[in-house]
Amino acid sequence: MSPAPSVSYSITVRLEFDAHSAAVSEITSCIEEHGGSVTALDVSASGPQRMRADVTVMTAGNEHAMEVVEALRDLSGVELGKVSDRTFLAHLGGKLTVESKVPIRHRDDLSMVYTPGVARVVKAIAENPDDARRLTIKRNTVAVVSDGSAILGLGDLGPLAAMPVMEGKAALFKRFANIDAFPICLDAHSVDDIVSHVKAIAPVFAGINLEDISAPRCFEIEDRLRKELDIPVFHDDQHGTAIVVVAALRNALRVVGKELETSRIVLSGAGAAGTAILRLLRAAGARDIVVTDIHGIVHEDREQLDGRLPWIAEVTNPRGLTGTLQDAIRGADVFIGVSAGNILTADDVATMADRSIVFAMANPTPEIDPAEAAKHAEVVATGRSDFANQINNVLAFPGVFRGLLDAHARDVNDRMLLAAAEALADVVSPDELNPTYIVPSVFNERVTKSVASAVERVAREDAGTVDAITGAMRVVYADEIVMPTD
Amino acid sequence: MSPAPSVSYSITVRLEFDAHSAAVSEITSCIEEHGGSVTALDVSASGPQRMRADVTVMTAGNEHAMEVVEALRDLSGVELGKVSDRTFLAHLGGKLTVESKVPIRHRDDLSMVYTPGVARVVKAIAENPDDARRLTIKRNTVAVVSDGSAILGLGDLGPLAAMPVMEGKAALFKRFANIDAFPICLDAHSVDDIVSHVKAIAPVFAGINLEDISAPRCFEIEDRLRKELDIPVFHDDQHGTAIVVVAALRNALRVVGKELETSRIVLSGAGAAGTAILRLLRAAGARDIVVTDIHGIVHEDREQLDGRLPWIAEVTNPRGLTGTLQDAIRGADVFIGVSAGNILTADDVATMADRSIVFAMANPTPEIDPAEAAKHAEVVATGRSDFANQINNVLAFPGVFRGLLDAHARDVNDRMLLAAAEALADVVSPDELNPTYIVPSVFNERVTKSVASAVERVAREDAGTVDAITGAMRVVYADEIVMPTD
Repeated sequence: MSPAPSVSYSITVRLEFDAHSAAVSEITSCIEEHGGSVTALDVSASGPQRMRADVTVMTAGNEHAMEVVEALRDLSGVELGKVSDRTFLAHLGGKLTVESKVPIRHRDDLSMVYTPGVARVVKAIAENPDDARRLTIKRNTVAVVSDGSAILGLGDLGPLAAMPVMEGKAALFKRFANIDAFPICLDAHSVDDIVSHVKAIAPVFAGINLEDISAPRCFEIEDRLRKELDIPVFHDDQHGTAIVVVAALRNALRVVGKELETSRIVLSGAGAAGTAILRLLRAAGARDIVVTDIHGIVHEDREQLDGRLPWIAEVTNPRGLTGTLQDAIRGADVFIGVSAGNILTADDVATMADRSIVFAMANPTPEIDPAEAAKHAEVVATGRSDFANQINNVLAFPGVFRGLLDAHARDVNDRMLLAAAEALADVVSPDELNPTYIVPSVFNERVTKSVASAVERVAREDAGTVDAITGAMRVVYADEIVMPTD
Repeated sequence: MSPAPSVSYSITVRLEFDAHSAAVSEITSCIEEHGGSVTALDVSASGPQRMRADVTVMTAGNEHAMEVVEALRDLSGVELGKVSDRTFLAHLGGKLTVESKVPIRHRDDLSMVYTPGVARVVKAIAENPDDARRLTIKRNTVAVVSDGSAILGLGDLGPLAAMPVMEGKAALFKRFANIDAFPICLDAHSVDDIVSHVKAIAPVFAGINLEDISAPRCFEIEDRLRKELDIPVFHDDQHGTAIVVVAALRNALRVVGKELETSRIVLSGAGAAGTAILRLLRAAGARDIVVTDIHGIVHEDREQLDGRLPWIAEVTNPRGLTGTLQDAIRGADVFIGVSAGNILTADDVATMADRSIVFAMANPTPEIDPAEAAKHAEVVATGRSDFANQINNVLAFPGVFRGLLDAHARDVNDRMLLAAAEALADVVSPDELNPTYIVPSVFNERVTKSVASAVERVAREDAGTVDAITGAMRVVYADEIVMPTD
């Protein structure tokens, strides 16, 4: 696949040119001829002889953008002005602000929100720590934690370079779930250090979203934090992905008229996402799962079984397969890839069972070009936004945390994740369901609500996971009589 | 001093009563008779026979508020509805939100602020870490860090109970300096742990404001963080207080016509604030300072000299005084108290030099009732908002951090603090200066600006303290041509 023009390489070019009737079409033709795609043209000044316009152009990458700019520079009668990069402009100064919810207009306001009035609130929380969920930002605040060791697909670039991703994630938390999320990018490396730092900052937060932490460290970090903290800890690269995959698979199986319990599933990739998908598929009732990694099919007699592989070998591969990925997918109903680009061909997909399903989610290059996969598979999904059926974590994590926070959950478990997956799948109605629409749009307003209420319901059913809100409500909805004692 | 009604104990009471002409005056009289002070009365419903009103009343404390409520309940023809506590209401759900600065309306927006577009910004920062100050929130973000070990005057109540104070501080940062500040309340105890956690979270921030950490731990924590971090670290309880005290003293000395260099100054209290005040007074040119603590005058031959006391003994007390606080202030020009309530009498102040200055800043009870002090001292200041001349850190920290952030400062030093103090003092013009107006109002808009530009100027003078912003500005104001390389 040669890259198509994309908004993430969108530039805005200021041009001055002679005001003759063909001028604008000469410019847009020049751009189109060089492979750019004009998305906006705003005339910002006009006179009898000359005009000025800001032209926004999607390009396929930086080099391509330069090519388009140079072509415009060469147009006769056209003078090139500023060129700006929209993605970078969107990041200038960062993507978040912290705002005060309380007005501070005069001394009386100061006396209530700061000293001396704040001392009474401090004392109330010291007496009853549960009040922190009522009287502080804790109730609605999530930490987006990363050490920058596995940023997107780019590797270990450290905590500073992780910032734009964690800020973006926080912006999505606000946009889709009205959650206040804050980036915590840790200059730390060992599992012990990361666990220790996250535990230390936990009082401020009602939930921890781990992000872009490399495997296998991410497993131990999450396991230990879940045991040691009284707020839910959720590694989105694992569980967010797993929820959306299970939801999408549920709907894909509906399309092809198969059952999860009896489907043969091949899962390529045994990293963070793969392990979590396996766990949730099993919880959802899948029985015949074969996992492959770079060394082929995972089975109990294979060498190089370390980390979670012995567990994977134990719980998967009921028919005792050995060999390569190609051996695994012969006759399979479902292929799920969270591994590497271009490891599968159309011929491989042709060997799968009738009405097969292919989720090729490696980023940025899928395990197989979706157009190739579609030659033989009935349902195809990827992680990319420029194909149908995008498996996108934004469908899961905002609703999951909204539900956890609303339930005052102290923990998160597989029952909640499964409820989230089912709720997400059910957002697509039977009328809407078809091979190119197995997951809803992230902008569908029902997504977060449905996922949140499913998670909240399960969390509340499990009394042990919810903070008791007992005792006299000493403090304070406006509807109640409240006189906190000193 | 018996407590006066205060807005921090303000309640709103809903009342229903017969609609006769004297009804409202009966209610307000009842409140006034019981010592409450009516600040608002809003009629929320009215009919031919009955009316409903929300009455807001300042009281002197919780017990007093209950008394007022009971008195209203006893009024004939009056029915008591909800009673709410305005300070607690202001804290419901916390005082901060995290907002996205970028719109996320459709898939194109998502592609720019999150994947895949964000990957380009990540790579730009990985290549040039200084870009984090341009492309992330770092440039304008400060951590408000506490372990809750010395919250206000209330002692060690832990990180959860510290939240309302740190949130309030963050709200003030926004209100007075447009800085994005976030509370980091640490569940940690040892100096080593706190230093380690703050270092770990530092990548996100352009400055660290330490708050309400007990002495002597606060000294070592600040010293070590200043050495080990490349962003400024400022313990507000120390330096914020010191800046405002030095500014106030500068103006007080102008009022009484004395010079700092030749004034005899007694400083009561050798804790965090006392030590910082001493340091900044010396930097400002004070020569004759005598420090007292609970054991009396600090001098080199005294027993019990630990922590910073040997240093204090070395640099103060040039006339070799020994004895009690009373021995120290005889003949002194200035008394500065950051110690304990009611340790000084009017008779003690009478022994001071003519035209004496008393800053009695212990909270909530000053070293001496300011009315008593004023019998003999010409200028009196306290830390309280209900007397003239409030020594309030809000006058300093917003401007100090604004200046540090604008300069991209890597450090903060005494020259900057002194410049802040001088700028703050100069906000009070010679025309305005008098014994009851030695510091400006916190709501005076010139305060933050003046302090900020003084701090920024000094920071920029000291090249070593400012991040170099060199090289091609590869990235990106709209005015420039920008094509970051991949």
